[in-house]
Amino acid sequence: MKYVFGVDVGGTSVKIGFLNQDGNLLESWSIPTDLRNHGGNILSDVADSIRKFVELKSLNDDDILGFGFGLPGPVVNNVAIKCVNLGWENVAVDEAFIRAYGKNVLVQAGNDATVAAAGEYWQQKIDGDIVFITLGTGVGGGIIAHGKVIDGAHGAGGEIGHIRAEHNEPQLCTCGLYGCLETEVAIRGINARARKLILEKNLKTTLVDDETLSPKRIFNAAKEGDTLALAVVDKVGQYLGQTCATLAATTDPKAFFIGGGIANAGQILIDAIKKHYVNYAFSALRNMQFELATLGNDAGMFGAAYLIIAGLNK
Amino acid sequence: MKYVFGVDVGGTSVKIGFLNQDGNLLESWSIPTDLRNHGGNILSDVADSIRKFVELKSLNDDDILGFGFGLPGPVVNNVAIKCVNLGWENVAVDEAFIRAYGKNVLVQAGNDATVAAAGEYWQQKIDGDIVFITLGTGVGGGIIAHGKVIDGAHGAGGEIGHIRAEHNEPQLCTCGLYGCLETEVAIRGINARARKLILEKNLKTTLVDDETLSPKRIFNAAKEGDTLALAVVDKVGQYLGQTCATLAATTDPKAFFIGGGIANAGQILIDAIKKHYVNYAFSALRNMQFELATLGNDAGMFGAAYLIIAGLNK
Repeated sequence: MKYVFGVDVGGTSVKIGFLNQDGNLLESWSIPTDLRNHGGNILSDVADSIRKFVELKSLNDDDILGFGFGLPGPVVNNVAIKCVNLGWENVAVDEAFIRAYGKNVLVQAGNDATVAAAGEYWQQKIDGDIVFITLGTGVGGGIIAHGKVIDGAHGAGGEIGHIRAEHNEPQLCTCGLYGCLETEVAIRGINARARKLILEKNLKTTLVDDETLSPKRIFNAAKEGDTLALAVVDKVGQYLGQTCATLAATTDPKAFFIGGGIANAGQILIDAIKKHYVNYAFSALRNMQFELATLGNDAGMFGAAYLIIAGLNK
Repeated sequence: MKYVFGVDVGGTSVKIGFLNQDGNLLESWSIPTDLRNHGGNILSDVADSIRKFVELKSLNDDDILGFGFGLPGPVVNNVAIKCVNLGWENVAVDEAFIRAYGKNVLVQAGNDATVAAAGEYWQQKIDGDIVFITLGTGVGGGIIAHGKVIDGAHGAGGEIGHIRAEHNEPQLCTCGLYGCLETEVAIRGINARARKLILEKNLKTTLVDDETLSPKRIFNAAKEGDTLALAVVDKVGQYLGQTCATLAATTDPKAFFIGGGIANAGQILIDAIKKHYVNYAFSALRNMQFELATLGNDAGMFGAAYLIIAGLNK
């Protein structure tokens, strides 16, 4: 049996997973992300941590297939173009990690959302390609085609959070565009819609507009039949359903996987998406599979490891 | 040197190309499409025609790598799900052709628009994946990822003509959906917009609303500065620019290739698309390459042949 390391680099901590080639996560741990020095210590911290682990476990270099990295920003040919949260710009992850690790190992890096998509794809072992959508503070996506993630020519493959979703009253997005999907179905957008409806006082609700307002509260209220909350959930389903129909007419996946914190809402979210999806979907695509993602916060580690596995299967 | 046959099956004629493995079209000819008997003679007609050619040229079976087919409908695993124009339903192209040809040869089939995309990709030898859009009676698309066409899990990869493009006054599309890109930027949609503006009489124009109205006339008038024609072209650019921005945030190609009869308009169409594209494109994607397709009606033959070449390079 051979092994892979999957490294998920976030702005607060770095998650490191030790997996076998069959995709079983054998051990995992995390180290804090050192943001000093423009993030210049991060990869050497990871290398040190893994080196100690390898020594502790008496692993042979030959048994390690490689090291995969998921990074919070666009990645092209293993170069992290820009990771604002890390302070990185144009970091050649393969070269930097090899230097820090001190051995000429195989390194593959990708954007964190596309890498998470790869993780879900690998673990679901679904018989076909998938589109993965993660809903949280932002909206990210990962497209799998021919069994591999699409990083894209400019590192922006699967940047579906910045597809225009609202056409009549488009809000300014943090990215500078207007009406992005992310402005409507990420945490802030969902809260804002609920807040607006609460202020309008046209729909009955138990929800109150205070600092406790959250997608979790809103989805929970919807599950209990709260009229206003149901309206919010329906609108989220409409934006996502329409966008999924667009994505389906592009790469036509076998299934959509919905993840991220907001997807903890569960089946009610899937049902809302499917309800609207069919109204926008091309005939051949109407019978589409929608699933909740299952790996949660571990998707990044799995997917980073899969970058190595998929590369070996080229 | 080895050889490939690329077969582009249309509702009127079947184009057959004989190419070498480097992608040079050595000879091509066409035979009429026999629509009798639910199109049941088409593949045996093709087999007969190719068999004669192979005998005439004294080609060895070993020198023929395979036979690629482009078909006017969705194709999944070499099965043509439905080709309305041919009368086909669930035709296993590989099995049927092998039976007709009488030899156990390699056969690959794909949807005609995605196959045309493959042809443009192969011949441009661009260093990266592309999205191909064909504008004519309908709007088709082909997405290349990791060097191969995306057929999709339901044979609907690249069905971009049926992405919703008009949100405020969506027209019924022939597919049953509303506001499809095809309703706005295919021949009928372009003519309809010009006709509407001519009737409104608000914009100066030399165009007249009669049976000679055509995209060609409209684009030619626009090139001469006709105000109304320029407004039509601008709107076409807006629909396509916005859709391209959506596609870019999905598979992030190296370049878009625009083909089909309407693209004979040339650079004016590319300029109109680019003008609007930048207003909808995610920052990392703003500097995108747009090109006119170059293969014209031969794209299908080239692409069908490339299905074989790409399969061998797996």
